[in-house]
Amino acid sequence: MEVVVSTRNKDKFREISEILEDSSIKTVSLEDFPDAPMVEEDGDTFADNAAKKALVLARFTKRFTVADDSGLEVDYLNGAPGVYSARFSGVGATYQSNNEKLLQSLEGVSEEQRKARFVCCVAIADEHGIVGIVEGESRGIIDTQQRGDNGFGYDPLFISFDYNRTFAELDPSEKNKISHRAKAFAKAKDVILKYIKENS
Amino acid sequence: MEVVVSTRNKDKFREISEILEDSSIKTVSLEDFPDAPMVEEDGDTFADNAAKKALVLARFTKRFTVADDSGLEVDYLNGAPGVYSARFSGVGATYQSNNEKLLQSLEGVSEEQRKARFVCCVAIADEHGIVGIVEGESRGIIDTQQRGDNGFGYDPLFISFDYNRTFAELDPSEKNKISHRAKAFAKAKDVILKYIKENS
Repeated sequence: MEVVVSTRNKDKFREISEILEDSSIKTVSLEDFPDAPMVEEDGDTFADNAAKKALVLARFTKRFTVADDSGLEVDYLNGAPGVYSARFSGVGATYQSNNEKLLQSLEGVSEEQRKARFVCCVAIADEHGIVGIVEGESRGIIDTQQRGDNGFGYDPLFISFDYNRTFAELDPSEKNKISHRAKAFAKAKDVILKYIKENS
Repeated sequence: MEVVVSTRNKDKFREISEILEDSSIKTVSLEDFPDAPMVEEDGDTFADNAAKKALVLARFTKRFTVADDSGLEVDYLNGAPGVYSARFSGVGATYQSNNEKLLQSLEGVSEEQRKARFVCCVAIADEHGIVGIVEGESRGIIDTQQRGDNGFGYDPLFISFDYNRTFAELDPSEKNKISHRAKAFAKAKDVILKYIKENS
């Protein structure tokens, strides 16, 4: 079955395709649908953004679709930046300005209170509606300075409990074993395979 | 505008209707749609269950619909019982057997690790799709014994940080000020009012 992965980013598409790889699944990127509408990610929750994206695109492409939304939730900030992760530092936010704002927001805050989690929510939809919404998380703690050159976003500040290094200090292959996105798409794969079984 | 609240429980319907109360909103219970289909809550996430319920019922009733799913997530249990809250202790689970299982699962576990949150996820849908998915949470800690006679479910074990008493020791009016459900439906109301404004 063809599965549309709702991203135009080649690296992200390849990463997700590798997780979903199965003889019964053929992943297709949004690059194949140049006229697909942009869905504004203005929801209150990751599930909201992912579900709207998956539904709109499944209808547009008339194909089974997976869409994700993800971000960082910091305990001390009551779950912020959350759905605002990409624009934490305001209009024109960059990875660097977001990381600086996060460091500032946690100045003088104890280690216990710097706990955080990366969350990825994946919605799965066909033309008729939502088939499933799954979530993956990766737990860790926010560092007091940036470390490492890999990854993107908040990776230089997020010390994963799985490795005791920041995400930016990990090889992509290490990160992909335990990342919130890898976990969420592994669950999404189960949902897709169950759907194929029930609809064949 | 008529808004279907997807519950057949009179107390829950009244509680939610009070939160949504507004001159432009008229709440209707599922009691008015006796033939509405039961939607199985077999999803991986609260958002999954709420979104499916809202979509299916919005299409069936041809009306704007809100649907919720909620549960308890305990830190030490990595988020369990979560979507399995109602059936934590297995087939034929009762509030009492679920509470006993939770106490057992946390035997000898330190206070710090007994932190937990009640989560409520509300999905809002019209006939065409998901309009929004919002979430409310209430943070607290799991007690070492049951206290209080009010409420239901895990209420006798959940000490709310807002009151330092268990949910079962609170008056309904106290609980409704800070509960996960109250917070989620307050956010849902904002989504509904915005929708009415944009579609009138």
